[in-house]
Amino acid sequence: MNIKLAKRMEKIKASEIRELLKLTQHPEMISFAGGLPAPETFPVEDFQKAADTVLTEQGQRALQYSPTDGDKDLRAMIAKRMNSLRGTNVTPEEILITSGSQQGLDMSAKILLDEGDVVLCESPTYLGAIQAFVPYAPRFIEISTDEQGMDMEELEKVLSSEDRVRMIYVIPDFQNPSGRTWSLQRRQKLIELANRFKVPVLEDSPYGELRFEGEDIPSIKSLDKEGMVIHLGTFSKIFCPGLRVAWLAATPELRRKYELVKQGVDLHTSTIAQLDILQYMKDHDLDENIRGIRELYRERHDVMLKAMDESMPEGVKYTRPQGGMFLWVELPEGAEARVVLERCLKEKVAFVPGSSFYPNGGHENTMRVNYSVSSPERIRIGVERMARIIRAYLAEMVTID
Amino acid sequence: MNIKLAKRMEKIKASEIRELLKLTQHPEMISFAGGLPAPETFPVEDFQKAADTVLTEQGQRALQYSPTDGDKDLRAMIAKRMNSLRGTNVTPEEILITSGSQQGLDMSAKILLDEGDVVLCESPTYLGAIQAFVPYAPRFIEISTDEQGMDMEELEKVLSSEDRVRMIYVIPDFQNPSGRTWSLQRRQKLIELANRFKVPVLEDSPYGELRFEGEDIPSIKSLDKEGMVIHLGTFSKIFCPGLRVAWLAATPELRRKYELVKQGVDLHTSTIAQLDILQYMKDHDLDENIRGIRELYRERHDVMLKAMDESMPEGVKYTRPQGGMFLWVELPEGAEARVVLERCLKEKVAFVPGSSFYPNGGHENTMRVNYSVSSPERIRIGVERMARIIRAYLAEMVTID
Repeated sequence: MNIKLAKRMEKIKASEIRELLKLTQHPEMISFAGGLPAPETFPVEDFQKAADTVLTEQGQRALQYSPTDGDKDLRAMIAKRMNSLRGTNVTPEEILITSGSQQGLDMSAKILLDEGDVVLCESPTYLGAIQAFVPYAPRFIEISTDEQGMDMEELEKVLSSEDRVRMIYVIPDFQNPSGRTWSLQRRQKLIELANRFKVPVLEDSPYGELRFEGEDIPSIKSLDKEGMVIHLGTFSKIFCPGLRVAWLAATPELRRKYELVKQGVDLHTSTIAQLDILQYMKDHDLDENIRGIRELYRERHDVMLKAMDESMPEGVKYTRPQGGMFLWVELPEGAEARVVLERCLKEKVAFVPGSSFYPNGGHENTMRVNYSVSSPERIRIGVERMARIIRAYLAEMVTID
Repeated sequence: MNIKLAKRMEKIKASEIRELLKLTQHPEMISFAGGLPAPETFPVEDFQKAADTVLTEQGQRALQYSPTDGDKDLRAMIAKRMNSLRGTNVTPEEILITSGSQQGLDMSAKILLDEGDVVLCESPTYLGAIQAFVPYAPRFIEISTDEQGMDMEELEKVLSSEDRVRMIYVIPDFQNPSGRTWSLQRRQKLIELANRFKVPVLEDSPYGELRFEGEDIPSIKSLDKEGMVIHLGTFSKIFCPGLRVAWLAATPELRRKYELVKQGVDLHTSTIAQLDILQYMKDHDLDENIRGIRELYRERHDVMLKAMDESMPEGVKYTRPQGGMFLWVELPEGAEARVVLERCLKEKVAFVPGSSFYPNGGHENTMRVNYSVSSPERIRIGVERMARIIRAYLAEMVTID
């Protein structure tokens, strides 16, 4: 290229996963690779009615520019919903509408991170967050994470020894990629440490309402008494993602910074998309729609776990999520998920190798497996095929050893 | 705030204009302050039909995630339109859909600017671009600009003496804020200099199709043989802005960088908004809609200029745009537009003081005046009121001198 680019562009590379996903669109492919919600859960007809009402009743307004922080009534409805479902106590003035939670991630980095600042994250963490943060050139420190959340001793140790930590990024509910959910105790401890070390927590919770087993656990934001938590929520997984409407909740003072940054990045989120969702929520029952999503995912999750239990060879570990869209597979040490993937693709099954979810690399033996978009039958067939390929691969490894 | 923010946040301040605009929403206010398209030009009914068709025929797809670079058919239609109307020769593979041109500005800065790099811009230039670029901490050098465009001698001199120039940002058609349009000769010279000094040109052309007088002038992109021009186009001013759908055209290699950056900032632009616009363009005549916009703005422009000619005191200069939505007023040296504004607001007339449009400040005697959203009657009344206030103010100044 004969144009000189900013230095940050050296770090912004194509995601292998996203490139890979392009290859998995063949209709015969059984893809556990994507992260899409099941499109049959989209309430198309009710949405169509709502969209029609908006254009009939307030067409000019819906198509005009609108305030940067988002529609007032939509913000009020979101605040009310959050307070009722996630245990928070936020006001509409603490909500800002974003163009997808991805924008919330980008803006958080813009607001909080100078080059060389430290971001603490789960290990593994969400790929989209890594992609959003990397242009701001932070240093990622991964904190060991188990079935209860981050290791709190390790977190405290890092917070004590590193003086440039500017953000703790967590996906506490049915995490993408691992499917894990933080315990209440770890959430409480996290808030205690965030307050003590004065480091903000970015709580990214796209799947929080998609629990199909067990008891709800209060959001981290609901435990926050000192305004240290920025909460990201979205309609993408509980309604539909194509509208790109999400939100964040933060103290009014911090929210004001997001508003200023948002003026510079896209002026405002689509007016009509905001009004359509608001109208849908007024005229229809979003919660009923979510109950339908949960049932569908529960069934697919159950089928996948049953097939895994029946067919995966010994030494292969996997999580048992209580909600969300993903589970996480660990092959024995030394195994390479990439090799398994190559063989799987030949047999028309796809998943995502897990190493992309570690900002500092490694963990070549891990895999993210999605169960939200495939039918039970295809899940069964796909898991069996995948298990057979893994079994053969592990047997070869032993032979070679 | 007990949270430490990134250093760039010191520079990201509330725009006085945007704060001011909040005060001008009183129904009695005659506001020449905004930059909104006239909502009565939005083809609400036809859009409603198109939106209904999209949801009936491809509802699930319209509500699902979609590719980062935008809908393929929409990109093809945009390329075809650009080539026919703006004299370019771009392929659909050179188009990327953005969430408003504001996002094109933010991403351009992210891709091109390191801290301390130099952006060359017109003087004055677009406020939204200043807001998009400032977080990346460039140095702005304003190039003197007259009725034909930038002063090419000055531009060449700066390009020769500054070795960190990374972008030349221009709004060549009916510029916001000045209403000025570049001559063909200056456009050709700009390309020559961009090629010679290997500095990319960011051509921002939201108003290019809104000419109501004179002859079309080829876009700068159409003169570009070496891939040095990034062109920003948008549906905001020729259709409606509330959908937040715009585009950029760049070489495939550079466009790929925008695609990677866009993955990190919002994944993709609203699927349904893209499909709705595409459907509208298939089933209805966008060009006819644009002709209607031009007629409406021509009338308002004519009424405003006539009122100005009749009522403005001597020594007040203003531009005579041949298209777009704004004209630019210069009061005599030493006069302060802010004082005039304060008095105007008391009499329920608003405009924007021009100094915000100069990244390096100054020019307190300038004003941006919008004619797209007020009725002819209100334009007449507003201009007369404004002229009376200016006349009195200038008389006072003379007395005080």
